[in-house]
Amino acid sequence: DQAIDYIKNLHFEPEDIDYLRCTGFFKEDFLDYLKDFHFTGDIYAIPEGTIIFPKEPLVKVVAPIMEAQLVETALLNIINHQSLIATKAARVVQEAGGGVMEFGLRRAQGPDAGIYGARAAVIAGCVGTSNVLAGQMFDIPVKGTHAHSWIMSFPSELEAFRTYAELFPDNCLLLVDTYDTLNSGVKHAIQVFKEMREKGIHSKLFGIRLDSGDLAYLTKKARIMLDEAGFPDAIISASSDLDEYLINSLMNQGAKITSWGVGTNLITSKDCPSFGGVYKLACIINEDGTEIPKIKVSENVEKVTNPGNKKILRIYDKASGKIKADLITLEDEVFTEDQPLTLFDPLATWKRTRLEADTYTIRELLVPIFKKGECVYESPSVMDIQAYCTQEKTTLWDESKRLINPQEVYVDLSRKLYDLKNQLLDDAHTID
Amino acid sequence: DQAIDYIKNLHFEPEDIDYLRCTGFFKEDFLDYLKDFHFTGDIYAIPEGTIIFPKEPLVKVVAPIMEAQLVETALLNIINHQSLIATKAARVVQEAGGGVMEFGLRRAQGPDAGIYGARAAVIAGCVGTSNVLAGQMFDIPVKGTHAHSWIMSFPSELEAFRTYAELFPDNCLLLVDTYDTLNSGVKHAIQVFKEMREKGIHSKLFGIRLDSGDLAYLTKKARIMLDEAGFPDAIISASSDLDEYLINSLMNQGAKITSWGVGTNLITSKDCPSFGGVYKLACIINEDGTEIPKIKVSENVEKVTNPGNKKILRIYDKASGKIKADLITLEDEVFTEDQPLTLFDPLATWKRTRLEADTYTIRELLVPIFKKGECVYESPSVMDIQAYCTQEKTTLWDESKRLINPQEVYVDLSRKLYDLKNQLLDDAHTID
Repeated sequence: DQAIDYIKNLHFEPEDIDYLRCTGFFKEDFLDYLKDFHFTGDIYAIPEGTIIFPKEPLVKVVAPIMEAQLVETALLNIINHQSLIATKAARVVQEAGGGVMEFGLRRAQGPDAGIYGARAAVIAGCVGTSNVLAGQMFDIPVKGTHAHSWIMSFPSELEAFRTYAELFPDNCLLLVDTYDTLNSGVKHAIQVFKEMREKGIHSKLFGIRLDSGDLAYLTKKARIMLDEAGFPDAIISASSDLDEYLINSLMNQGAKITSWGVGTNLITSKDCPSFGGVYKLACIINEDGTEIPKIKVSENVEKVTNPGNKKILRIYDKASGKIKADLITLEDEVFTEDQPLTLFDPLATWKRTRLEADTYTIRELLVPIFKKGECVYESPSVMDIQAYCTQEKTTLWDESKRLINPQEVYVDLSRKLYDLKNQLLDDAHTID
Repeated sequence: DQAIDYIKNLHFEPEDIDYLRCTGFFKEDFLDYLKDFHFTGDIYAIPEGTIIFPKEPLVKVVAPIMEAQLVETALLNIINHQSLIATKAARVVQEAGGGVMEFGLRRAQGPDAGIYGARAAVIAGCVGTSNVLAGQMFDIPVKGTHAHSWIMSFPSELEAFRTYAELFPDNCLLLVDTYDTLNSGVKHAIQVFKEMREKGIHSKLFGIRLDSGDLAYLTKKARIMLDEAGFPDAIISASSDLDEYLINSLMNQGAKITSWGVGTNLITSKDCPSFGGVYKLACIINEDGTEIPKIKVSENVEKVTNPGNKKILRIYDKASGKIKADLITLEDEVFTEDQPLTLFDPLATWKRTRLEADTYTIRELLVPIFKKGECVYESPSVMDIQAYCTQEKTTLWDESKRLINPQEVYVDLSRKLYDLKNQLLDDAHTID
C-alpha cells in the first residue's frame, strides 16, 4: 500500500529539480524530463499478506528504463522493510499462539519504522499495537497498559493501582514489577481487584503485566496467587525482550502467560534486521515487442539472477490445500492442472517430483497493480489483509514452520526458464 | 534536531482528537486539554555528535507530568534510532580510516530510517550518502556510482563503460563485477581509461567498484592491473556486506581499497539493531519547589534507575585532553577543578581513582534546548556537527576504541547521588 501511494504521487517539485541541478551531476535535458515526470508503466505484485519464499520476484515493473530505475530504491526500501517485520511478527505470533501486542515504537528505527512496522505486525497476526498513530492511520486495534512512571508518580504502588482501576475499570492491566513483583506488585493488584469486586465492578478485562525478572517462575507464582484469591480469569501479560525463541522456551516451561507485549526484537527484527530484496533488470523489451532476457552473473552464487519476463505459479496439493511448490516460469508458458507436472530442483536437477494430473491446483501469484501508470488494484483494509494472511498460513506444512531447521518449500524453475538461464550463463563466459 | 522539530510542532488536530475519542479510552476533559496542547517545559540534552556512554541521561525533560509523558515515545524513537546509526557508522569509519559512503537506503527500515540514518552516518564521519533526498534535506554530500542494471541495459559491458565515461568523465567509477571481475570488468575499465587518456581527458575522479567476490584477492589483483596499465591514481572502491569487522579483516590482509560503500549492515546496525535508551521518571518537583527523587527498582540490575534531578560532568585529563571519566551528580552539586576529586565505581566502590587538583578539567554535558516551551538552542549544520564529532573522537583513549574487549570508560556517581540511590533502594524494600 505504501508503495502504491509512492508510485501514484511520484513527481518532482521545482525545488527538487533546483537541488538536483546544484549537485552538478545532471544535464538540463534530464532535469527537463523530470519536470513532468510521472510513472507510466505496468506493475505486477504478489498481494500483501501472501506467503512468499526466497528468490521469488515479488514485484515486476514493466516500464521505460528511466522510470523503472527511478522507482527502484523506494520500492526496495518500502517492501524490504514491511516484508521483514511481517515475517518476524508471523514467527512471534506462531510461537505465542496468539495474543501478541506490538509494543516497539520507542525502539523502532525512526518514526516510519514504528508506524509501518506496526501495520506489518498486525497483518502478520498481532492483535494490536501500542502505536496510536498507526491505529489512527490504518484503523487497526490500539492496545496498551500503563508505564512504570505511572506507579512512580504516586506516593505508593497501591494508590497508583487504585487510581488506574478507577479510571480504566474495563481495561485494567496493572504493571506489577516496579518495586517487587510478588511481594508488592501482585499483592497490591489482588488487593485492588478485591476492592473492585467488593464495589460490584465486573471488569471486562483485568489482570497483571510483568516486564522484568524470570517470566516463567514469576508468572507461575502469580497465577497461583491470583487463582487462590479467586481471580482465575485475571490475565497475565508479559513483556521484556521477548522474541519467538524466548516465547517458545517460556511456553515449554509452563509459563502462565496468555498475552504478550513484544517490542524491540519484533519491530527491529533483531536477529535479522534486513530483508535482502533486490531489484534487477531481467528483460529488455524492444519497441517491436521482442524480448531480450538479461542475467546478472556474480562470483556469489546467490547473486546470479533469473532472466526474462517471468511469472510465479503456486502449486497446491489438491487434497490438503497445502503448498507443494512454487514454480517460476516465463510469462508466456502455459501449465494446466489436467496434465502431469514434473518439478525439479534448479540446483540439483536429479531431484524430481512428478505430480499427477488433477491432484494439484495452480494459482498465479503476481497480480496487476498498475497498468499504463494507473492503479488498477483495490487495496483491502489492513484487518482484511490480516484475515487473508491468517488463511495463507494454513497453506504451509507444519514441517516448514519449525523454528529450527525447517523444511524448505521448493521454489523451482520451469524447464524453459532453466534452459534460458544456463544458456545466458554460458554466453556470459564467452563475452569479449 | 528531529526531536527539536517534533517538540516545536507537537499539537493535536481536530481529527486526531476525534480519533482518540472514538477509541473509547479517554475522557472529555483530557480530550479538551489536548485541543490547545503545546509543550511548555524545559529540556536539556547532550549536543548531537558528542561521545556518550551507557547509563547517562542524554536528555532531561522538566515539565508537567502530562507533557513529559506525551513526548516520551517520540523522543525515545528519534534519539534511540539516530544514536544507534551514528554509533555504528563511527565504528565502520574508524576501521576504514575514512572514505566510507553510506549506501543503505534500499535496506533501511522504512524511508525515515534511510533519511535520518544517512544524516546520523554523516555526522559520525561518513563522507557522503547515496540518499539524494537526505542530501537535499540536510545539505550533506551525495555520492554514488552506477548500478549493475546500467551495464545490463547495454549490449556489452564495454559499451556501457564507454557511455558512462562520456557522461560522467569527472566521477567515473565503473562497476566491474557484472559478468567477470578480472577477465571482463577490470579489463574493460582499463580499456576505457586508456581511451579517455588518448582523448586527453584528465578525470578528477576515476576508478572501479567491486560489489562481490573476495574483496581482498580481487582488489589486490585489480590494483596490479591498474598500476601496470599506468593508472596508479585509479580509485578502488568496494561494497558487499561490509561492516567494521570485515573492513578490519580486509585491511589486515592488505586489500587495496580506499573507498568503501557500506549499506545494509550500517543502516540497520545489523549486529545490534536497537539502542536501548529508556525514559524514566527520576524526580517529582512539588509546586513549592521541593524535590522528591524517584527510583525504579527491578529484578534486572541494569533496569534500576538513578534517582533525582541530575547533571553529567565530563572529567578530562588536563595534559592529554582525554576523557578520564564521566560523573553523574545531582543538579545542585558543585565541583571545582582546583580541588582533588575522588572517583569510585558505583558497582565496586573499593575501586577508586584520586585526581589531583588542577590536573583535570570539568565540562557539563547537558545544555538547555527548551526553556518554558521555547527552543533556546541553535542547531549547527550537519557538516559542523560532523566536524565537532570528529574532534570529540580524539578525546577517547585508543584502548576504548578497540573492536574486541575495549576498556570501558568510567561512568561514576557522585557520593551524594550514590547515597541517595542506596537509601531509596532500602526504602523500596520496606514498602507496604
